[in-house]
Amino acid sequence: MKVALIQQRYHGSKEATIKRTLELIQKAEDAQLVVLQELHQTEYFCQCEDTRFFDYAKEFEDDVTFWQDVSKKHDIVLVASLFEMRAPGLYHNTAVVFDRGRIAGKYRKMHIPDDPGFYEKFYFTPGDLGFEPIETSVGRLGVLVCWDQWYPEAARIMALKGAEVLIYPTAIGWFDADPEDEKQRQLDAWITIQRSHAIANGLPLLSVNRVGFEKDPTGCLDGIRFWGNSFVCGPQGEILAQADNESEQVLMYDIDTERTKAVRDIWPFLRDRRIDAYGCLLQRYCDN
Amino acid sequence: MKVALIQQRYHGSKEATIKRTLELIQKAEDAQLVVLQELHQTEYFCQCEDTRFFDYAKEFEDDVTFWQDVSKKHDIVLVASLFEMRAPGLYHNTAVVFDRGRIAGKYRKMHIPDDPGFYEKFYFTPGDLGFEPIETSVGRLGVLVCWDQWYPEAARIMALKGAEVLIYPTAIGWFDADPEDEKQRQLDAWITIQRSHAIANGLPLLSVNRVGFEKDPTGCLDGIRFWGNSFVCGPQGEILAQADNESEQVLMYDIDTERTKAVRDIWPFLRDRRIDAYGCLLQRYCDN
Repeated sequence: MKVALIQQRYHGSKEATIKRTLELIQKAEDAQLVVLQELHQTEYFCQCEDTRFFDYAKEFEDDVTFWQDVSKKHDIVLVASLFEMRAPGLYHNTAVVFDRGRIAGKYRKMHIPDDPGFYEKFYFTPGDLGFEPIETSVGRLGVLVCWDQWYPEAARIMALKGAEVLIYPTAIGWFDADPEDEKQRQLDAWITIQRSHAIANGLPLLSVNRVGFEKDPTGCLDGIRFWGNSFVCGPQGEILAQADNESEQVLMYDIDTERTKAVRDIWPFLRDRRIDAYGCLLQRYCDN
Repeated sequence: MKVALIQQRYHGSKEATIKRTLELIQKAEDAQLVVLQELHQTEYFCQCEDTRFFDYAKEFEDDVTFWQDVSKKHDIVLVASLFEMRAPGLYHNTAVVFDRGRIAGKYRKMHIPDDPGFYEKFYFTPGDLGFEPIETSVGRLGVLVCWDQWYPEAARIMALKGAEVLIYPTAIGWFDADPEDEKQRQLDAWITIQRSHAIANGLPLLSVNRVGFEKDPTGCLDGIRFWGNSFVCGPQGEILAQADNESEQVLMYDIDTERTKAVRDIWPFLRDRRIDAYGCLLQRYCDN
C-alpha cells in the first residue's frame, strides 16, 4: 500500500491553501492512498469562537465534489478532512474518503476537545456515525481524527471491526510560551500514544499533522505553532517514516500490509482480551 | 511517593534468589513502595510445561507470610508476585500487596499469554478478581501483571476505578536468535505501550522486569534473555528513571503524585470518552 501524507501550512486563504495541496498531491506520484491533515482547506479556526467560521461549513457539498474530482483525476484513494454543515446550527468535523472518483464513506469526529486555543466543542457536534472502517480499493481504512488519537477505545473498535490501517488527520501544536521540556513531553506523548494503538492492534498507522504558526485572530492567545512530525508506523509501533516539525512535506511510504498477520500471530493480543471483565469501560467513572 | 523497583536475576534456587532480593530491598532505604518483578522468587518456569513446577505454588501461603513480614520489618508497601495454588489443579499468577505488615489485597493476572517459551496458559488460570485497585497507605495501586501491559482496557479500568499509579511486575525478554532490529522493535513496543497507558490515563507508571539469561530446561528452545529496562514514567508518559538491560538494580524515584491532576486538567481525556459508542469493546470481534 503506497501511501502519501501531505503535511502543509495554511497559506492565508482557502484558495491559496488548496492550490498548494494540489501541488503536493501532484508530487505524490505513484501513491495509492493520499491523506490530508485535519481541516486542511483553511486555517485552524478553532483558536477562537466566532460564528463567521460556520460559513466555511456551508461549502461542504461543493468541497466534497471538488475532492471527489481530485481523487478521480489522480486515480487515488483520498482522505480529506472537511467542516460539514448538516443543518444550520449543526456542524461536524468530518473526514471524507474518496476512492478514485467515488465517495467511499465518511467519519464524523467522535471525541471533541475543548481547551484554550482549541475551542472545538463550540464548532463541532460529536460524531454520530460511530467507529466504522471505510471500505476502499486499497483496504479497510480506520479513519479517526485528531483528539480521537488519545483514546485507545477508538483504535481498538476500528481494529475489532476489521480496519487494516489506522489514519489520523490532525492539527496539534505548541504554544511558544511553554517551556522546552513541556513541548518535548507533549510531542513525545502524541507520538507515543499513536504508536501504542498500532502496537495494541497490530496495525500500521498514518498520522498527518499541519505545520506553521497561526495567530489567534482575537489576540487573546499568541497562536499555535503546529508541530508537524507526521509519521507512518508499522504494526509493532516502529516508526517507518517521519516528517520534521516545520516543513511542508509529502511523506511517502510503501506499507507491507502482510506484516499485520505476521505480527498478530506472534503477539496475539486479540486472542486474550477479557471481554467478560471489561464492562466498566462503558461507564463514565466506576465510583459507584 | 518514594518508589523502588527491584530488577534482578534468578540466582539458581529460590533461597539464593530471595536472599538477593532482601539485600536489594535493604538498599532501597527510604522507599515507601517497593515493587518486585514477576514471579521473583524463582526462575521463569513457564519456558516449558512441566507439572513439577506446580510444587512452587503449594508454598503460596508460606510465601505470603514471608513477604508480609518483610513489609513489616522494612515498614514499606510491597508488591510481590507469587504463584498461587488455589486448589489442586487450579493456580494463578498472583500479585500480593502488603502494607507495613498487613495484606492489603491481591490481583490475579487477568490476561494470560501463551507463545513459544511463555507457556503460561498451562500454569495459570485467568484471574477472576477483575481489575481492582488496591488501597494502601501510599495510595490506590493499579497492580497489573506482564501480559496485561499490552491491553489498554486493563489500564483504563484501573484508572476509572481510581488507581493513582499503574504497576506492572513483568518477565519479558529476547530470544538470542532473533535479529537485532526485531529485538529493538520488541523492546520499544514494550516501553511504548506502557508509556501510552500513563498518557491515556494521566497516571504515573512503574514497570519492573527481570534480567539475566535463563535456559530452557527442556533444551527445545535456547532460553530467554530477560531485557530488564525497568522504568518509571510520569502521567505524560515521560520517562523519569530507567534501568539498563543486564544489571541487577534498585531503581529509585520520588514520584510527584500531584502531577496527575495538573496533567489531567490540561489533557482531560476522561471528560470526552464516548461511552455511548464503546459497546463493541465487549465483543470478541465485531464481525457480525
